[in-house]
Amino acid sequence: MAALPTYADVEAAAGRIAGVAHRTPVLRSRLIDEQVGAELVFKCENLQRIGAFKFRGAYNALSKFTPEQRRAGVAAFSSGNHAQAVALSARLLGIPATIVMPIDSPASKLAATKGYGAEVITYNRYTESREDLGRALAEERGMTLIPPYDHHDVIAGQGTAAKELFEEVGPLEALFTPLGGGGLLSGTLLAARALSPETRVYGVEPAAGDDARQSLERGEIVRIETPVTIADGAQTQYLADQTFAIIRRDVTGILTATDAELVDAMRLIATYMKLVVEPTGALGLAAVRNALPDDLRGKRVGVIISGGNVGIDRFAQLLAR
Amino acid sequence: MAALPTYADVEAAAGRIAGVAHRTPVLRSRLIDEQVGAELVFKCENLQRIGAFKFRGAYNALSKFTPEQRRAGVAAFSSGNHAQAVALSARLLGIPATIVMPIDSPASKLAATKGYGAEVITYNRYTESREDLGRALAEERGMTLIPPYDHHDVIAGQGTAAKELFEEVGPLEALFTPLGGGGLLSGTLLAARALSPETRVYGVEPAAGDDARQSLERGEIVRIETPVTIADGAQTQYLADQTFAIIRRDVTGILTATDAELVDAMRLIATYMKLVVEPTGALGLAAVRNALPDDLRGKRVGVIISGGNVGIDRFAQLLAR
Repeated sequence: MAALPTYADVEAAAGRIAGVAHRTPVLRSRLIDEQVGAELVFKCENLQRIGAFKFRGAYNALSKFTPEQRRAGVAAFSSGNHAQAVALSARLLGIPATIVMPIDSPASKLAATKGYGAEVITYNRYTESREDLGRALAEERGMTLIPPYDHHDVIAGQGTAAKELFEEVGPLEALFTPLGGGGLLSGTLLAARALSPETRVYGVEPAAGDDARQSLERGEIVRIETPVTIADGAQTQYLADQTFAIIRRDVTGILTATDAELVDAMRLIATYMKLVVEPTGALGLAAVRNALPDDLRGKRVGVIISGGNVGIDRFAQLLAR
Repeated sequence: MAALPTYADVEAAAGRIAGVAHRTPVLRSRLIDEQVGAELVFKCENLQRIGAFKFRGAYNALSKFTPEQRRAGVAAFSSGNHAQAVALSARLLGIPATIVMPIDSPASKLAATKGYGAEVITYNRYTESREDLGRALAEERGMTLIPPYDHHDVIAGQGTAAKELFEEVGPLEALFTPLGGGGLLSGTLLAARALSPETRVYGVEPAAGDDARQSLERGEIVRIETPVTIADGAQTQYLADQTFAIIRRDVTGILTATDAELVDAMRLIATYMKLVVEPTGALGLAAVRNALPDDLRGKRVGVIISGGNVGIDRFAQLLAR
């Protein structure tokens, strides 16, 4: 395994994305605080470019391409937000991009990726391996493959969200982060351990796909079937070598949230914070509501909202009752 | 008529609300820009405390109360957001509050106002006069009445939103502002004329209730029946003396938007900006899409999103198709 990224890599990434990625706002809601019994600060990556934190990692990775790599182009496989992140980054940097996406991706994500000028190739996520497809494609066309989380520069880029959060609000008692393949959580851990070492950092994955929790218990990467959950951004089957190594070393704990809990959290965020978040983006708040350790009551707790890319019809449908 | 507020009053208001009101984010969407054909900057007052700009004016007005006024309390009549604004401001300043609200206000607004500890008295907006009710109440209890827009300090407070916008993004070619009773538009005009005098400032009211447009044409305040529109924050029947005087003096023009155009704008904002806005809050973007003057194509244009207080079930219902 290559050397793991460090906080110095997060700092370098922050320099590369400065002025290109948004410095997303940190928002609060007194009414959610009252319901939860803690003082919550939300880092709103649903307000990031392409509607999710993924832009940070993708832009960081692509901006390190050599002139040869830029000419040959970038390939990526993604359940959605990484696709848009690579597509937009490639367009901004003048790099051709081909994206492999699940055929059942939200229509909004497919359309957005094409809208950024990328070529899109679809596959069936329940029967085909996106890694194999992506690698074959990259080899065939001489393109550089940028995976959604198993990549040094992607992890370092994702860490810039938590870096900004700590810079803005200072130390936190705890921080809750959505967890799929572990890119955001790994980057968050690098930032937290450097900037606020006492912070308890929790990763939150869908209850239907708790491979990270199982992996930590077993001490090795556990592979599961593609989980069936509304949190399509966290439908990952296993952690990567790098994300597992960082998470195992630095995380406080792994929590889970059910689909019903995600919908409740989405409704709360829409009602009191006026934000549209995708199901995956609500994992952090769902866990805070569900499983806030007693000694965090009344304390200052961070929540990363990872993204807002849900078709608005789907959003309305999920929240209808 | 009392002396009209000036930009100096807006500056003083900014000092009073500093650290209490949120300095709301200014957000952009490349995809909306492409659709509209201009470079839009959105001042997001749906992310303000109580979910709307109204907090600015109410807090400014209440913070100027004498000790006697504070003890006797504040009364207000409001279709919703001003109610919450007065209720929260009163709570923060330790002032008792009684609010007169339409019985058909969104349940979310009624509940929020009570949640801030205010006493709520309801009335029928189609048959009763809220001014008469509010004044009788204020007299009976010795409370100070703070109207939603016909008030020097309220107008000055509302102007702080545009002040922040210009401070953050610099001069703008044009600025589109929702228009009900004219408090936000008047305050915006005071800020714009001082900070960016060349900016064309448009007020946007519901097509079903274009009393301000009629008033400007006739040169006097025109009263209309309570308009039936989904823009419940702009269901006003007439401008006030102060807001009419400022608007007549300084506005570039009055535009309108239909309910269908508001729903389309709400959908666009939810899809591309990940924000929940109430129908009234979408007036500015609806007008930009509908009636952007040709010479504003490609130019830098501001849009004030006034609020986000729509029940989430209602929001889902409006956007369903």
